[in-house]
Amino acid sequence: MQDINVVELKDDIELQEPILVVGLPGVGHVGKLVAEHLVEELKAEKVIEIYSKHFPPQAIVDDKSEVRLVNNEIYTCSTDKNDLVILVGDHQSSTGEGHYQLCDTYLDIAEEYGVKTIYTLGGFPTGQLTHTDEVLGAVNNIDMIEGLKEAGVEFKPNEPGGGIVGASGLLLGVSKFRKMNAACLMGLTSGYLVDPKSAQSLLRVICKIFDIEIDEGPLEERAKEMEKIVARLKEVEQQQQGIPEPSMSEEDLRYIG
Amino acid sequence: MQDINVVELKDDIELQEPILVVGLPGVGHVGKLVAEHLVEELKAEKVIEIYSKHFPPQAIVDDKSEVRLVNNEIYTCSTDKNDLVILVGDHQSSTGEGHYQLCDTYLDIAEEYGVKTIYTLGGFPTGQLTHTDEVLGAVNNIDMIEGLKEAGVEFKPNEPGGGIVGASGLLLGVSKFRKMNAACLMGLTSGYLVDPKSAQSLLRVICKIFDIEIDEGPLEERAKEMEKIVARLKEVEQQQQGIPEPSMSEEDLRYIG
Amino acid sequence: MQDINVVELKDDIELQEPILVVGLPGVGHVGKLVAEHLVEELKAEKVIEIYSKHFPPQAIVDDKSEVRLVNNEIYTCSTDKNDLVILVGDHQSSTGEGHYQLCDTYLDIAEEYGVKTIYTLGGFPTGQLTHTDEVLGAVNNIDMIEGLKEAGVEFKPNEPGGGIVGASGLLLGVSKFRKMNAACLMGLTSGYLVDPKSAQSLLRVICKIFDIEIDEGPLEERAKEMEKIVARLKEVEQQQQGIPEPSMSEEDLRYIG
Amino acid sequence: MQDINVVELKDDIELQEPILVVGLPGVGHVGKLVAEHLVEELKAEKVIEIYSKHFPPQAIVDDKSEVRLVNNEIYTCSTDKNDLVILVGDHQSSTGEGHYQLCDTYLDIAEEYGVKTIYTLGGFPTGQLTHTDEVLGAVNNIDMIEGLKEAGVEFKPNEPGGGIVGASGLLLGVSKFRKMNAACLMGLTSGYLVDPKSAQSLLRVICKIFDIEIDEGPLEERAKEMEKIVARLKEVEQQQQGIPEPSMSEEDLRYIG
Repeated sequence: MQDINVVELKDDIELQEPILVVGLPGVGHVGKLVAEHLVEELKAEKVIEIYSKHFPPQAIVDDKSEVRLVNNEIYTCSTDKNDLVILVGDHQSSTGEGHYQLCDTYLDIAEEYGVKTIYTLGGFPTGQLTHTDEVLGAVNNIDMIEGLKEAGVEFKPNEPGGGIVGASGLLLGVSKFRKMNAACLMGLTSGYLVDPKSAQSLLRVICKIFDIEIDEGPLEERAKEMEKIVARLKEVEQQQQGIPEPSMSEEDLRYIG
Repeated sequence: MQDINVVELKDDIELQEPILVVGLPGVGHVGKLVAEHLVEELKAEKVIEIYSKHFPPQAIVDDKSEVRLVNNEIYTCSTDKNDLVILVGDHQSSTGEGHYQLCDTYLDIAEEYGVKTIYTLGGFPTGQLTHTDEVLGAVNNIDMIEGLKEAGVEFKPNEPGGGIVGASGLLLGVSKFRKMNAACLMGLTSGYLVDPKSAQSLLRVICKIFDIEIDEGPLEERAKEMEKIVARLKEVEQQQQGIPEPSMSEEDLRYIG
Repeated sequence: MQDINVVELKDDIELQEPILVVGLPGVGHVGKLVAEHLVEELKAEKVIEIYSKHFPPQAIVDDKSEVRLVNNEIYTCSTDKNDLVILVGDHQSSTGEGHYQLCDTYLDIAEEYGVKTIYTLGGFPTGQLTHTDEVLGAVNNIDMIEGLKEAGVEFKPNEPGGGIVGASGLLLGVSKFRKMNAACLMGLTSGYLVDPKSAQSLLRVICKIFDIEIDEGPLEERAKEMEKIVARLKEVEQQQQGIPEPSMSEEDLRYIG
Repeated sequence: MQDINVVELKDDIELQEPILVVGLPGVGHVGKLVAEHLVEELKAEKVIEIYSKHFPPQAIVDDKSEVRLVNNEIYTCSTDKNDLVILVGDHQSSTGEGHYQLCDTYLDIAEEYGVKTIYTLGGFPTGQLTHTDEVLGAVNNIDMIEGLKEAGVEFKPNEPGGGIVGASGLLLGVSKFRKMNAACLMGLTSGYLVDPKSAQSLLRVICKIFDIEIDEGPLEERAKEMEKIVARLKEVEQQQQGIPEPSMSEEDLRYIG
């Protein structure tokens, strides 16, 4: 077995103005939820499976008790404006080196498909259980900013302060060398829980960018379940909170490193 | 030294309808206990030793104070219905990448022997000290399910929820690409202790599948010793338990990720 | 992508008596602060970018929300006495092996530039929030000690006791084999906080060594902000301190390993 | 730089009946203390330095503030009965894979020197601060046991129960394949502290085996300092001990895995 195994399920893929959308597991699984929702609602077709030693040594069990190796998958579909290439997966790389190698693999495939623009989807951890609709953006080419602002994306200098870690960040950085435009769109989320509500906010922004309409129903339902859990968590939190400790302001913490 | 060293102790091995049984260390050491018990009771013969840089840098001391390098070993034996190829070992890989490489090595050997079917044995952690006889299954080909159900294996959609980690899962996922049928059989166990009682339950299932009879004596004895320890642990647990904390249901925890 | 990618931004670099100054992230970010300050105040020119799989898989977001891949960068500038080659960066290697490989890359570049002398800048953790002006030194050639003492560097036998970890130490050790003289200069710092005040002390020593004058203004400002935070931290510390535990002397702790 | 760099400081080394003695850092630094003591007292000559990416990226500062890269070193010396090849060092490998590679390097050198017998020195952690003179042994060839018992080494079935981890264990396991006899000798030690007293016990055994006499003076002195610290630690321990928790016997703990 090689380090990375790209299994092509379909030959001769021809795409019109294809855009790569990346939604791998990460903070609040926001990006993964949105990308998987797109795959389902747009009836995208699976064209590639990616296996790698850099994924955890693990098999996933489906609802029929059948297993498959953890992987990343690439789907394609058409919309009025663009064809979409959607990258989803069970895991990101479990090694730093693997992140760089997988990123190169993703971009090799994207280039072969003629992709010129990339959107990586993720979550931005706020540490707060209170929901906000905000979607934060970062780009590898400032020319993209105006258009994204019109779609409702917000931009804040130097945010996220800790940089963008994992495939979402790496794809922006590396695709720059390949003259591809790439933006990372992050739904704000607590960082503690799977967050379908943040995914809904991010989905709306994506729909504006791609000029498409998508049924939010399934995400809506999961969001409602989640709200009940959050309510209970807040209760627990209140019960456990005694007298607050003397604490540093966020401003202060920025200097601790 | 290479990454993986396969030392063949015997040439020209001819096997009839061989089945691979894998029992490496893992949850409750259930799989390891069963596989080692099979080796002993069926008087299986050691035919291969596998050494690897992916095992911990460690030597095992035997009852004569003689040491040997940690390894995995392959035994063969005959039963009325099938020949068995049994993989046991001191350790699984200590690196993610090593898991994939060792898995390929195991399957190369299995293919060479003409193996078409694989059973990986393991434990399924319940978090409860109370014993249950249940054996949970997952397969890489749903055609295997009916037969296994008849032998007493239970199947539950999407279980284990966290997938099957390590050699047990990987072997199912990877052997699928090689057109081998594979099932993972997991004895339910607390997850905290070596569990010979769960091993007994799993052994009974294995005996039905292979149509063999095996003396449970030695496992029985170890199970009895273990029961005493469990009883004492429960006592300690009760002494330490004060007022229970407000807690999330298992249903809830599924959403936390 | 290779393990390490050296992107040269400028050809035919000719330097006079070049000295390599290294200020990568580390204890109190003292070395990084000083080296970045030198780059800014001496208007050094960026000549090389180094990317590597041994850096974390991460992108940095700038004040325009534009991202770039984490990297190390080399700048050059002229002073009256020497040309300087300054190595700064977002991160050190995240793997032990990467440290060795990157160190070789740095030294290959340095040799190509004709560097004969290296100063690696860092912090020396005291565990105390109280500031001291001291700068501690270690060398790979004892002939350097006299000159450095004149510039205000102090030398203490076997200090730091735990050795010098990371690029600062490795560069001294490895450059010795290449017949380059190298010294590590460490500003004393608590070890808990980014420390611009310690950076000021170290900068003064550097200025004496290089016979240059540098405006300390920006460091001074950051130091003042930091002092307020330290004052608040000390307050918190006093509030939390109850009765002191019976404790081992530092002398004693040296023997615990 | 290669993965492992063997720097030979001397050519044409001719040794009579050479025995390899290995004392690398480990439990209580017992093995390291004994091997370094042998180097000093027998005025052994350094013949090889080993550098590796598998050692931590670190430089050691000596008493003149001069640094050197962390390494392993090989010394040789003569005694009446045998020539000794002594391996000492700052660190063991920091990766599992590195352990295997370095072990191969050590044995390649040993074979080149004509070594037929190896003693690896280490500590055996008891968890008790009370000293005992005992030295525990394990061998890769049971023919060695009788002779070692006569020198005062004790042998206990399956001890250490957790196997022998690191170079000490690996060298026994791997040298077996090379038809070299090897024993691991372990001084009993608390496991919490550097233990020159246990080193003294081990040294006495070594002296009997090699039929040599060695001044214990320097170890004696360090042992006395250490005793004071142990006394103080015991005091602290007594102060902190309130009512003992309900606890499992050692017998019980053996089954927890």
